[in-house]
Amino acid sequence: KSRLPGFATHQVGVAGAVVDESTGKVLVVQDRNKTKNAWKFPGGLSEPGENIGATAIREVFEETGVRSEFRSLLSVRQQHNHPGAFGMSDMYVICRLGPLTYDINFCTQECLSCKWLDLADLATTGDTTPITARIARLLLYGLEQGFDKIDLTMEELPAVYSGMYYQLYHRQLPPTLKP
Amino acid sequence: KSRLPGFATHQVGVAGAVVDESTGKVLVVQDRNKTKNAWKFPGGLSEPGENIGATAIREVFEETGVRSEFRSLLSVRQQHNHPGAFGMSDMYVICRLGPLTYDINFCTQECLSCKWLDLADLATTGDTTPITARIARLLLYGLEQGFDKIDLTMEELPAVYSGMYYQLYHRQLPPTLKP
Repeated sequence: KSRLPGFATHQVGVAGAVVDESTGKVLVVQDRNKTKNAWKFPGGLSEPGENIGATAIREVFEETGVRSEFRSLLSVRQQHNHPGAFGMSDMYVICRLGPLTYDINFCTQECLSCKWLDLADLATTGDTTPITARIARLLLYGLEQGFDKIDLTMEELPAVYSGMYYQLYHRQLPPTLKP
Repeated sequence: KSRLPGFATHQVGVAGAVVDESTGKVLVVQDRNKTKNAWKFPGGLSEPGENIGATAIREVFEETGVRSEFRSLLSVRQQHNHPGAFGMSDMYVICRLGPLTYDINFCTQECLSCKWLDLADLATTGDTTPITARIARLLLYGLEQGFDKIDLTMEELPAVYSGMYYQLYHRQLPPTLKP
């Protein structure tokens, strides 16, 4: 078996759930070009060479005007052969972000609407997608019990190729097991 | 901004950490074609349309002869522009698997050696890669405190496109927050 790759098989999409811990609200948008006006997290496709967190921060800003910073990776979805991906597979990553600004100035080309919504409302409303509702419940759990319960934190480590780095995401280790 | 993808940007690699909970050992291999003989988890590239867990199980079997089943997603690594990926980005996912068989019959074309190794030894040996040592410590934590501390569990959910499903991985929700 040849282990040479030869081709990329996946596009990587990233959504950013910007959670305001002081109010329990999360930033949501309604896509302009979808039939059902479901509230969801802003997001979009990674550009070549772009880190997961950078994609989330960029897409959130482009769609909503809100500036944010990376906190953790929450969830990964893998999907094959779906109509939007032209035969490629889709890896969709959901990140938790912290807000740096709060004023909304949303992109009217992409979004019909944008607002800060109570996580509890997003977890129970019918006007959302199954995956958004699920992540809203996960975030609600984090808000109540501590985000360390749901987070995969990121660390940058040196690759075997000198001068290069990779980003590694996993559950936080207890202090006694840290390197 | 166009939101159409147009091209895949990532190859997806998957490694499988097969942990024998009764002995605290994990299945490791040494690659035949690497200069440094580092112990690592068996793994390889996803084939088009193949789920993360299926890739891990297939690669573990091809390299070691051990049959296993999917338990959880443990870690995600993103890496750009590394020499092996021909300008593509690399998403590398590490799964936890449970053994269904134990006898080793490793692929001599791919592997120099293969064995069941104590997790505690893998976490401390110099003969491994930084990422393998890190995941070994994570698995040791799981073995001692419960794998629910480190696992992202998988659930299959219906996509918006009828008859299609996607796989969603995230931290397990407490029973009261489950759908």
